Amino acid sequence: MKYDIIVIGGSAAGLVAAMTSKKIYKDKKVLVIKKLDKELVPCGIPYIFHTLGGVEKDYMGIEEKFKAMGIDLLIDEVIDGDAEKKTISTKSGKTFEYEKLIIATGSTPFRAPIPGNELENVLTIPKDHFYLETVHEKLKDAKNVVIIGGGFIGVEVADEIKKAGKNVTLIEARDYLLPASFDKDFGEIAREEIESDNVKVLLNSKVKEIAGNGKVEKVVLDGGEEIPADVVILATGYKPNVEIGKKMGLKITDLGYIETDDYMRTSVADIYAAGDCVQHKDYFTGKPSRLMLASAAVFDARIAASNLYKLRVLRTNKGSLNAYSTVIGGKAFAAAGITEAVAKQEGFDIVVGKAEVMDRHPGKFADASKIVLKLIFSKESGLLLGAQMAGGKSIGEMINIISLAIQKEVTVQDIMTMQIGTHPLLTAAPTVYPLSVAAEQAFSQM
Amino acid sequence: MKYDIIVIGGSAAGLVAAMTSKKIYKDKKVLVIKKLDKELVPCGIPYIFHTLGGVEKDYMGIEEKFKAMGIDLLIDEVIDGDAEKKTISTKSGKTFEYEKLIIATGSTPFRAPIPGNELENVLTIPKDHFYLETVHEKLKDAKNVVIIGGGFIGVEVADEIKKAGKNVTLIEARDYLLPASFDKDFGEIAREEIESDNVKVLLNSKVKEIAGNGKVEKVVLDGGEEIPADVVILATGYKPNVEIGKKMGLKITDLGYIETDDYMRTSVADIYAAGDCVQHKDYFTGKPSRLMLASAAVFDARIAASNLYKLRVLRTNKGSLNAYSTVIGGKAFAAAGITEAVAKQEGFDIVVGKAEVMDRHPGKFADASKIVLKLIFSKESGLLLGAQMAGGKSIGEMINIISLAIQKEVTVQDIMTMQIGTHPLLTAAPTVYPLSVAAEQAFSQM
Repeated sequence: MKYDIIVIGGSAAGLVAAMTSKKIYKDKKVLVIKKLDKELVPCGIPYIFHTLGGVEKDYMGIEEKFKAMGIDLLIDEVIDGDAEKKTISTKSGKTFEYEKLIIATGSTPFRAPIPGNELENVLTIPKDHFYLETVHEKLKDAKNVVIIGGGFIGVEVADEIKKAGKNVTLIEARDYLLPASFDKDFGEIAREEIESDNVKVLLNSKVKEIAGNGKVEKVVLDGGEEIPADVVILATGYKPNVEIGKKMGLKITDLGYIETDDYMRTSVADIYAAGDCVQHKDYFTGKPSRLMLASAAVFDARIAASNLYKLRVLRTNKGSLNAYSTVIGGKAFAAAGITEAVAKQEGFDIVVGKAEVMDRHPGKFADASKIVLKLIFSKESGLLLGAQMAGGKSIGEMINIISLAIQKEVTVQDIMTMQIGTHPLLTAAPTVYPLSVAAEQAFSQM
Repeated sequence: MKYDIIVIGGSAAGLVAAMTSKKIYKDKKVLVIKKLDKELVPCGIPYIFHTLGGVEKDYMGIEEKFKAMGIDLLIDEVIDGDAEKKTISTKSGKTFEYEKLIIATGSTPFRAPIPGNELENVLTIPKDHFYLETVHEKLKDAKNVVIIGGGFIGVEVADEIKKAGKNVTLIEARDYLLPASFDKDFGEIAREEIESDNVKVLLNSKVKEIAGNGKVEKVVLDGGEEIPADVVILATGYKPNVEIGKKMGLKITDLGYIETDDYMRTSVADIYAAGDCVQHKDYFTGKPSRLMLASAAVFDARIAASNLYKLRVLRTNKGSLNAYSTVIGGKAFAAAGITEAVAKQEGFDIVVGKAEVMDRHPGKFADASKIVLKLIFSKESGLLLGAQMAGGKSIGEMINIISLAIQKEVTVQDIMTMQIGTHPLLTAAPTVYPLSVAAEQAFSQM
């Protein structure tokens, strides 16, 4: 059977690739092939363990969307393909011809090679609703849970499982939490938040062994400390799913991702790739980046789908900004661009501006929270390089001001004199708007 | 006595003018002269009647800030000045010499010339804490309150007074609420919200007379309808305070505001002006604009203060964007740039993109709200001209993405491919991020 556009994968990248394709190329026949019958909102996964209360509450419901848009959907696994004949074949024995193929196969949890990682109840957090139902069940019976890895999945899952009433220990090898997106000052705010929820945080801690008789019983640290564990969750990163890409002869990068150009075209004609399976690069250095985010996946997918038949939507930005937000304890955290630590390590000459401001005005409203903000600028050019913030829920959108600002090459002066809208019940006061204050503080040091 | 920099007025513009002056020119002696001993957060004023629970809860506390920064403060009224001698004199008989003078005298409620507007209990909403204490007292004893004017002060005050348990009628002459910032589709959402709080809204309604025996008893409409009223609030706009400007020979515009250049310099050397007393112009047409917003005032003040001695902070934008947000009933509203109605009236060839999306993902979180968004683009150039939105509290910052986007001349393609950060507990899903969806919808029409 022949389709104009076939998308492999149905999570964030696959979904948007298919929908954008159909919106732009209305007459094309579009097929999505995906392994699982139900797709989860990827970033919602940590919240199924308590806040949402179940795996089924996190379903995306893409089946209805596809139906409404006239996109065909097949639950099956693509196991082979021929880039010359432009065909793919599935586990159930079907073969499809394509005109354009978009690979959006995502990523799978990486099981850190720790002795004992194969024991029963040593679990991971994949985007697989069958597996996650098992995790949910096992957690219900657990008393002591150890999470290995203090990146965002580890921190979010720790926070949720604690709220579900378990004893939770979070272990991170580096000296602060969330080191991929934040500097230590913000990592410390995150630690205070999660500790105030009674999650036990162990920094600078390496796991020597996960031990137990068939089933996990404890986690042993390098220093000999033993932590009792009924369940261990490995939050030690994800690896890209590139099997089908390899089989079809696509170029794979040294880090093991599919290589694409700026328009998400792989090394093979008419095959595009998007999302976690693709090699991203850092916005400011062009170096390979390992960060995997649904928001970046969606961006890839829009670029890929828009440009399947001709380059209609030009890519004007240089790499992944890693705009990112989360909630830890009662506080939201967000970051975009380069951290202070990475900027120094890469040799940027930087100036940092800070602000601490209430996000309502006057700060006496019941839902007011303090925003702590850091802006990082290039000293000579004044260009904004990055930002980190902690505070109330509104910073989830405030980080997108920063994200746009970096993409539009905004300077410290642009932010100082930026026109903004403010309201007592919604934002900080205009007189002390945090972006203005931090920019002004940076400017005074230039 | 001589000061390097004197600021007249201590509300949003005066406060920021003084603080920015002192931050940038650390060695300069700065004096602020203002009439009232206490300054109110201007946009917080509607909330003193219920949510905050009292005038004193809305104090800015600028006295402490000035003290901490080494800015002198005098509670007095500037009644005259001599631009040649570079002096000003006050009601209490003091005279000061200045090197640079910043006029930030603000605005005063405009009492619409309705017969009966001088009756007892026909009140306005000035930025004067003594007067507002009286308003608060009078409202406590009132049962029926009529508010004339469906702009943002009228709508916010109506909503608050209703929450305080009064019978409230809101009268607007035009055919929808908030016509200065929104199109009718959003004005209708605002009306539904405020009506669901049981405020009675009368559109297309002109007031013939405010009637009563000494004290107000009723409001009579053109059509003859009579509405009983113990208190009437005139929310019929504000007029700029330009008396001292006139006395010092500053050029005044046809609409009665102080004229400045792009750096807030008035027609007289070494005299700057900022805030409500200054003539603003529309961002896209350059036409005179009457909108008065604290956020715009603060912007003026930063530009004025930064550039007192040389042009250090260049003004790169063309006029007032009128980025604006508010809360009506349980819903936040925000707008920036040009409306669809004004765009058509001015002759812009436009394309409109819309989105309706939940602001959490999955949309099952307890605090999820639907965002309704409209983006207005120039058809040929693809440039973003304006936006309107209604939804949860996060749109208070989302409108600032739009505000920056307009200022940085962002196109429909820039928004479609903008990198964003998202999180289930903070934002819409990346797959259906409202700005992306609305931009994509507009793009498909181009």
